Amino acid sequence: MVSQETTAEVTDATYRALCKHGFADVTMEDIAAETEKSKSALHYHYDSKHDLLLAFLDELLDSFTERLDNVAAETPREGLLALTEELLKSAENGNPPRDFEVAVLEMKAQGPYDAEIRGYLERFDQTMKEHFAGHLAAGVEAGEFRTDLDVSASADFLVTVIAGAHTRSVAIGRPVEETRETLARHIDSMLTAEGTS
Amino acid sequence: MVSQETTAEVTDATYRALCKHGFADVTMEDIAAETEKSKSALHYHYDSKHDLLLAFLDELLDSFTERLDNVAAETPREGLLALTEELLKSAENGNPPRDFEVAVLEMKAQGPYDAEIRGYLERFDQTMKEHFAGHLAAGVEAGEFRTDLDVSASADFLVTVIAGAHTRSVAIGRPVEETRETLARHIDSMLTAEGTS
Repeated sequence: MVSQETTAEVTDATYRALCKHGFADVTMEDIAAETEKSKSALHYHYDSKHDLLLAFLDELLDSFTERLDNVAAETPREGLLALTEELLKSAENGNPPRDFEVAVLEMKAQGPYDAEIRGYLERFDQTMKEHFAGHLAAGVEAGEFRTDLDVSASADFLVTVIAGAHTRSVAIGRPVEETRETLARHIDSMLTAEGTS
Repeated sequence: MVSQETTAEVTDATYRALCKHGFADVTMEDIAAETEKSKSALHYHYDSKHDLLLAFLDELLDSFTERLDNVAAETPREGLLALTEELLKSAENGNPPRDFEVAVLEMKAQGPYDAEIRGYLERFDQTMKEHFAGHLAAGVEAGEFRTDLDVSASADFLVTVIAGAHTRSVAIGRPVEETRETLARHIDSMLTAEGTS
């Protein structure tokens, strides 16, 4: 078992190392350089870089889920908009905003080659979808959204939009925030297009 | 000058080599192995792998633009749907469908590191956006779509959706075709939500 303290230190170090070196190129040495530990101490806790990165993804998924759980609002519509804002803001921690997004896109490109990484990518995707579906279903229930809304398909569509915003941010430098306003307008037409007139 | 024949042969070979080896790992040798030429003959035509890949992207952009130019339909709405179908179908040429998508996503992850690659990524993005905008503007002009439609923002939003569908296809194996139906419904609510009631 790796202690909570070590896990937290290694998670932060891995985040910083990924921002600096990218997912494909990061080494155990790069990660060790961001901790108080030596490379051999890291190897004592994690058998390989792959193991360490999976442990990192596990921590990241927990904190991602917690972030989305904590998105609160007065109404389902506001909750939905708050969720898209949470998902369409650039990375934090004082790093240049796009660095972590770049590492994440490199990870996504590894999906077809690495079943364990893909397992985590699926769980991130599913977590987003469930949170969107929660706000959508609440809005239908409350009579705020159209009653014939396909909650699952709409949640899935919103996940696609978020994924696209992040990909374009990395590929061509278009900030994720630019998708927010159009998406907000789109959400309104999607939720109310029929059934509320 | 590289002859048209050589360009065509190398373009096809590069496509196949990218499908087999991915963008990050493909070598001049891999590409040569897909042609009748030797690796040194390839080097005679292209100074480096990077030069060859840029020439490939140039050819790919031309054929991509031509494909989108050729999308024809009776009405602007049908044109828009035909365009999304064209962009949401898996790669052809008998390769397993996702292989080329994977190479493209690897290329997108290179955007921040390589200004020349990014230049091409921007032109692909812009080409899609212009084609969406063309159909949207025609629909507004013809009175088929709501008159207050923000053509540029809507075209940009559709490009984001296409990018997200391709990213999720690579990352988690969700086929791009699954986005088609939801997108078709969303296009209708987007185009007609206000102003046509």
